[in-house]
Amino acid sequence: MDKIHRLFHPAGVVVIGSMSEGKLGYELARQILLGGYTSVFVVNPKGQGGLGIPGYTTIKSINQPLDVAVIASPPDTVSASLIECGEAGISVAVIITSGFGEIGNTAAEEKLKEIARQHNLRIIGPNCAGFVSTSASLYATLEVRPPKGKMAFISQSGAIGGAVLAWADEQGVGVSKFVSYGNRVDLDEIELLPYLADDPDTRVAALYIESVKDGRKFMRAVRNFCQKKPLVVIKSGRTTSGQRAALSHTGSLAGSDHVYDAVLSECGAIRVETIEEMFDLCKGFANLPVMSGRKLAIVTNSGGPGILAADRAEKEGLFVSPPSEGLHRRLSAALPPNCGLNNPLDLTVQGTEEDYRNVITAVLKEYDAILSINVATPYLDSLALARGITDAAAQSDKPVVANFMAGEIVTESIAYLKNRGVPNYPIGERAVSVLARMAEYEKYRLAYQEEYLPAFTAQTLSKNETNEFLEPDAMQWLANNHIPVPQFFFARNVEEVTRGCMQIGFPVVLKVVSPHIIHKSDYGGVILNIQSEAEAISAFQKLEKIAQGKDFRGAMIYPMLPKTHEIILGFSHDPQFGPVVMLGLGGIFTEILKDIVIRTAPLSAKRSWEMIRSLKSYPILAGIRGQKPCNLEALTSLISNFSNLPWIYPEIKEVDLNPILLYEQEVLAADVRVILKEQ
Amino acid sequence: MDKIHRLFHPAGVVVIGSMSEGKLGYELARQILLGGYTSVFVVNPKGQGGLGIPGYTTIKSINQPLDVAVIASPPDTVSASLIECGEAGISVAVIITSGFGEIGNTAAEEKLKEIARQHNLRIIGPNCAGFVSTSASLYATLEVRPPKGKMAFISQSGAIGGAVLAWADEQGVGVSKFVSYGNRVDLDEIELLPYLADDPDTRVAALYIESVKDGRKFMRAVRNFCQKKPLVVIKSGRTTSGQRAALSHTGSLAGSDHVYDAVLSECGAIRVETIEEMFDLCKGFANLPVMSGRKLAIVTNSGGPGILAADRAEKEGLFVSPPSEGLHRRLSAALPPNCGLNNPLDLTVQGTEEDYRNVITAVLKEYDAILSINVATPYLDSLALARGITDAAAQSDKPVVANFMAGEIVTESIAYLKNRGVPNYPIGERAVSVLARMAEYEKYRLAYQEEYLPAFTAQTLSKNETNEFLEPDAMQWLANNHIPVPQFFFARNVEEVTRGCMQIGFPVVLKVVSPHIIHKSDYGGVILNIQSEAEAISAFQKLEKIAQGKDFRGAMIYPMLPKTHEIILGFSHDPQFGPVVMLGLGGIFTEILKDIVIRTAPLSAKRSWEMIRSLKSYPILAGIRGQKPCNLEALTSLISNFSNLPWIYPEIKEVDLNPILLYEQEVLAADVRVILKEQ
Repeated sequence: MDKIHRLFHPAGVVVIGSMSEGKLGYELARQILLGGYTSVFVVNPKGQGGLGIPGYTTIKSINQPLDVAVIASPPDTVSASLIECGEAGISVAVIITSGFGEIGNTAAEEKLKEIARQHNLRIIGPNCAGFVSTSASLYATLEVRPPKGKMAFISQSGAIGGAVLAWADEQGVGVSKFVSYGNRVDLDEIELLPYLADDPDTRVAALYIESVKDGRKFMRAVRNFCQKKPLVVIKSGRTTSGQRAALSHTGSLAGSDHVYDAVLSECGAIRVETIEEMFDLCKGFANLPVMSGRKLAIVTNSGGPGILAADRAEKEGLFVSPPSEGLHRRLSAALPPNCGLNNPLDLTVQGTEEDYRNVITAVLKEYDAILSINVATPYLDSLALARGITDAAAQSDKPVVANFMAGEIVTESIAYLKNRGVPNYPIGERAVSVLARMAEYEKYRLAYQEEYLPAFTAQTLSKNETNEFLEPDAMQWLANNHIPVPQFFFARNVEEVTRGCMQIGFPVVLKVVSPHIIHKSDYGGVILNIQSEAEAISAFQKLEKIAQGKDFRGAMIYPMLPKTHEIILGFSHDPQFGPVVMLGLGGIFTEILKDIVIRTAPLSAKRSWEMIRSLKSYPILAGIRGQKPCNLEALTSLISNFSNLPWIYPEIKEVDLNPILLYEQEVLAADVRVILKEQ
Repeated sequence: MDKIHRLFHPAGVVVIGSMSEGKLGYELARQILLGGYTSVFVVNPKGQGGLGIPGYTTIKSINQPLDVAVIASPPDTVSASLIECGEAGISVAVIITSGFGEIGNTAAEEKLKEIARQHNLRIIGPNCAGFVSTSASLYATLEVRPPKGKMAFISQSGAIGGAVLAWADEQGVGVSKFVSYGNRVDLDEIELLPYLADDPDTRVAALYIESVKDGRKFMRAVRNFCQKKPLVVIKSGRTTSGQRAALSHTGSLAGSDHVYDAVLSECGAIRVETIEEMFDLCKGFANLPVMSGRKLAIVTNSGGPGILAADRAEKEGLFVSPPSEGLHRRLSAALPPNCGLNNPLDLTVQGTEEDYRNVITAVLKEYDAILSINVATPYLDSLALARGITDAAAQSDKPVVANFMAGEIVTESIAYLKNRGVPNYPIGERAVSVLARMAEYEKYRLAYQEEYLPAFTAQTLSKNETNEFLEPDAMQWLANNHIPVPQFFFARNVEEVTRGCMQIGFPVVLKVVSPHIIHKSDYGGVILNIQSEAEAISAFQKLEKIAQGKDFRGAMIYPMLPKTHEIILGFSHDPQFGPVVMLGLGGIFTEILKDIVIRTAPLSAKRSWEMIRSLKSYPILAGIRGQKPCNLEALTSLISNFSNLPWIYPEIKEVDLNPILLYEQEVLAADVRVILKEQ
C-alpha cells in the first residue's frame, strides 16, 4: 500500500530509455515535463539527457530520492534495468516496453517477477500504457493528458486506456489516477482498488478487464471497494467471438461470461458494456450526492423529450410519480395555467430562471432526484434556465442532472452547468440510466454483506465413491450431507427387490444401476408406476436384460412420487472463480427459457434465499393463482448445504441434482449425477 | 401529392403575422431570408413589411405566384387568414400559431378543418414548429437551420423537431425535408410518407410520434414507404408514466405500446428509443450502400475496443467470423507477424495507410460490411488510416463504417471520413447496432409482403348469441367458424347427461353452464375424469347445487382430454389499429414468462405461421429432446380462421380461447369466452 502511495506521489521519477528524439524514452520524458512534473531524471547507456532533464548512465548515480522508474528501454535490457531499480530502492517500476508474454515470451516475464520478488520491488506492466496521478501532475504515459477530476481508471488494455484519457475532457469527466497494467506480472486491480478506496482524490473507479488473475481475491477487492465507493466495470469477451479475440489478445483464458455477471453483481460492481456508459456513470457518481430512493421528477420546457425520459425511467425501475396534492396546489398557484403539472413537469418555453429555481427547489423536497430536460431554440435564453437549475441544486443534497438540447446553441449553458457540478447528458434517457444505477448502488451499499466463507474441513471420499460413484452411493452421499432425497433401496437381485418394495411401499419406480448407462431414460432404464411385487420382479428382469453386457449391478427402488414443480441445482468449478452453483427451472422449459441463476459457492442461507428469489419463475414456486407454495425454506437450506459440497469434497468436479422435486411439505433431490476430477 | 410537392418547392411563400421586431411573424420572415429563400412576402393588418420584404394587407394584393402560407398571427385571426389563403389558391397553410386543441379549443380546430375542406386547402399544424425543405433553401421555422442532407424528419412534437434540427450538424446528419405537424388537423405522416418515398433528395426518413390518427392508414403508409426506403420511428409513451404524459400533452389517447411494437415491425419500420439511436441509424442509411448479409469484419489498430465491438455484434446477430483460409494466408503474407488475423483483424499501432487500404479491400470481398476501429494517440497519424479506409470504401459497394477514438486528436480524421461518405461513430458498439439494423431492414425489404385484408362479409349473430353467448353457443359458433373444438354435448337434465355420456364416451368432464358463473373452476364448476354414468349423474347434481340461485342451465359434457401443451389465443380491438390477435404460451407460465406475440388481424396462413415461430417457446411446440411435435399446421389454420372473426362479427368485442390444447394429431380450443360490445 505504501509503495502504491509512492507510485502516485513519488519523490522522484526516473525514465529508463533513449533520449534520442522520437524514441519512447524521450517522448515519455517530454510528456512528463509537459504535464508539470519536474523531479524527473533519465538513465540510458550513454547517460544522455535532454529537454533540460539531466541524463545518467546508472540509477544509483542520480543520488536523489526516487520512487518510480518508467522503463522504456528495449525488452532484452529490461531485466538488467529492473535489478538496478531494486538495488536503488525504487518502489514501483512501470514497464512500458513490450515483447513479453503477449508474444509468447513468458520466460522473460517470469524473470521480471523473480527480480521483483528478490528486491521487494513492485511492477506495473510490462506492455502497458503507463500511469497518471493528476494530483501529483504526473502523466507517465504517451496518451492524451486528461483533465483532473474524481474518476480513477484501471485498464488491462492500453488502447482502451488511451481512448478513455483522450475522451475524458469531451465527456466532461476528470481523472484522479490512471493505471494501464498490460501483462500484469505484478500489480493489478486487486491491490490498486484498496488504495483507491481510501484515496481522497477518487470518488468513483472504473475498470476495464479482459480476464482476472485470482478470482476470489478479485472478488474480495471489488466487494471491499464497493462498500466505500462505486465501481464501474467493463469486462470484454462477453460473447464467443469476443472471447476468441480476448484469447488471442491477452493469452489468458477468459472465464464464462455468466459467471462474471454473477460475480460482479454479487460484489456490488456496476457492469456496463461501453466506454460511453462508463463515462456517463462516472460523471454522475463523481459529481452528485447519493441517490437514496427511486422517485424521479422530470422538469422540462417541452413535452416530447420529457415523455421519452419518463419511458426510460419506468423501464429502469425509477418512479416518475405525480406530485402530492399539496405540491401540485403550490405549483399550480405559482405557475401559468398552461404548464403541465403532472410528472414530467412541463414549464413550457415560457419557463423563466425564477420558475426553474422555485419549482426545482420545491420539487426536490418530495423526490429523490431531478432531471431537467430543456430544448433550446435560437430565441431561448437557455443560460437563464441553467442558472435556475444550478441555484436550486446547490441548495440541495439530492442529485440534480440536466439534458440541454442540442448542438452549439447550448454549449455555453452546458459549460455553466458543469462548472457548478450539475452533469449534463446529451439525451435524457442516458441521465435516467445513470440515476437508476446510482439508486441501485446505494441500495447495495446499505445492504452490504460480508464475504461468506466459513472454514470447511475437507473430507475424502470412500473407496466406492472414488471409483464409480454410482446412484446408490451418490444418493447415500447426498443424504449424509443433509440433502433430502426420497426413500430408496438398492436391490441387487430378485429377493432384494421383494424386500425393497415392502420397505418402500407400492407404487414404486425401478431404475437400472450400471456404470455404463448414464442416460438411463434413453435406454428404457427407468420403469414407473409399478403396482405389485410381480410387476416389480418383471421390471427388475427387464432392467437386467437392458443392461446385458453393461455390468448390471441391480436396481434402485424409489416410491412413485407425484408430479410437481421441478428445478435443477448443480455446482462446478469455474477456472477463475472456483466453486459456482447454478439453480434453474427444470423440466422441458430449462433449455428454452433459460431461467437460470449463478452464484459463487458457498452460499449462506440468506444468499440461497436471494438466489431462489432471483429466478424469473419464483412466483410460480411461491404459489400463484391459488396454487400451494413449495417449501422454499427447505429448498433454501438444501441449496446452502449443497453449496458447501465443492469445498468439503475437493475431489468432485461437478454435481447435478436434476430434478429436485418441490412439494408443499418437502423438497427432494430425485436424481443425481456426480463427476469426479481427473485423477 | 401535388400540393405536398408545392409545399417543399413553392413558387412563393407568404408569412402572415406581425413584422414588428421580436414578433413571431418577423422572426419567421427573418429566418426564411437567412436560409436563402427570397420569394417571400408578408401580410398583416397594417401591411407592414421589413427586412427588405414587401408588406401587404391581403394575400390577394400580392399578385405573385404563391404556394405556401406560414401563419403566425394570433389564434383568433387564423381562420380569417385561412379563408384568405383558400381564396388566393394557396396549396398549403402552415399554422405555427398555438392556442387550439392543445389547450382544449377543439371548436376552433374544427373550424380550420372546415375551411380547408371548403377551399381544397391543406394544413400543417396548428401549434407546430414549421417545416424545412433544404433543396429549396426554405427554412420556415424558428429552429436551428440544419445542414442539407438525405434524412427527412417528421415530428409530432415541435420540441423534438427543434432538438433534432439543432443537433443534426454535430451528429453528422443532413436533412432533406422537415415537417412538424403539431395538432395535425390535416397533413401528417400518412400523406407525407408517400411523397418522401419518391423524393429523390431523401434516402431515409425518421418519424417521432406520440399517437396516430388512423391506425390502418398509418400502417399502409409505413408499409409502402418501407418497401422503398428505411423508416426509423420513435414512438413515445411506452410505459405508463410516459403514457400519462403523452395524454396530457397531445390530448389523444395513446394505444397500447405492445401493439405499436407489433405494428411497426409488421410494416418494416425500425423502432428506436432515443434521438441518438435515430441519428445513428439515419447516418448509416443516408450514407451507406445496402447491407446484404450478416458477416462483419472488424479491422482495428488495438485489441480492447475491437473485442467490445465483437461482443456487441454477436449480441445483435451479426457474425464476426474468422477469415477463410485463403484470405488468412494472403493477409498473413502481407502483414507483420504481430498482427491479429482472426476477426477482429488487429493491424496494431504500426498499421499503415497502405495496410488499411489493402486489408479492407481484400476483406470486403469476403464480408458484408467492415467496421474499422482505431484508437489514436498524440503520436499516431490517424488521418493516414482514414485515407486508407476511405480509399478502400470508395472501391466497394458494401458498407464501411468507422470508429475513431477519441476526443480532439481525431477531429480532423472524422471530418475527412465524413466528407468521403464513411460515417464515424463515437463507439464501435453503436456502429455495430446500425449495421445490424441495416441488415434486418434489407431482409425485411426483400421479403416484403403486401397488405393482407380480404373482403369479409359481416355476419350478424343469432339471438341467443347476442343475448348471452354461453358456452354451448360459443362452442358451436367456433365449430361453425372452422375453429376445431372437442366433441361436446349440452345436457340440460339427467336424461340428457346419460345420452351425452353415451355419445361422448367415458371418461368425461362436466362443466356447469350458468350466465352468472364465469370463472367456473373457482366455483368447483368443472368436474374431471368421470368414469361412469352414475358418477356423471351425481356430478350433474353437484353442479346443479353449485349453481343454485344462479340460473342453472345444465352442463357441458366433454371427453376427458389428456394433458398436453397449452396456448392462449385471443382477439380484441385496439383503439388505434382495430382488430389485433394475441397468441401466448398457456398454463401457469403465461403470467410469469409473458411469452406473448401480438399481430394485427386478419392474418394470412403465412403470417399465422410466422406468429407461432415468434413465440419463445416455439421449439417446445415443435418438439425438442425427442418429444413429438404438436400439429402446428392445424394451429396455423386455426389462428388464421380465428383472426377473421373480428371482421366477420363486428358485434364481438373480445374472444379468448384458453386453453387451446396442442396434440400431435390435432389442436382443440378447449374453452372459450366471448365478450360482446356494449349495445
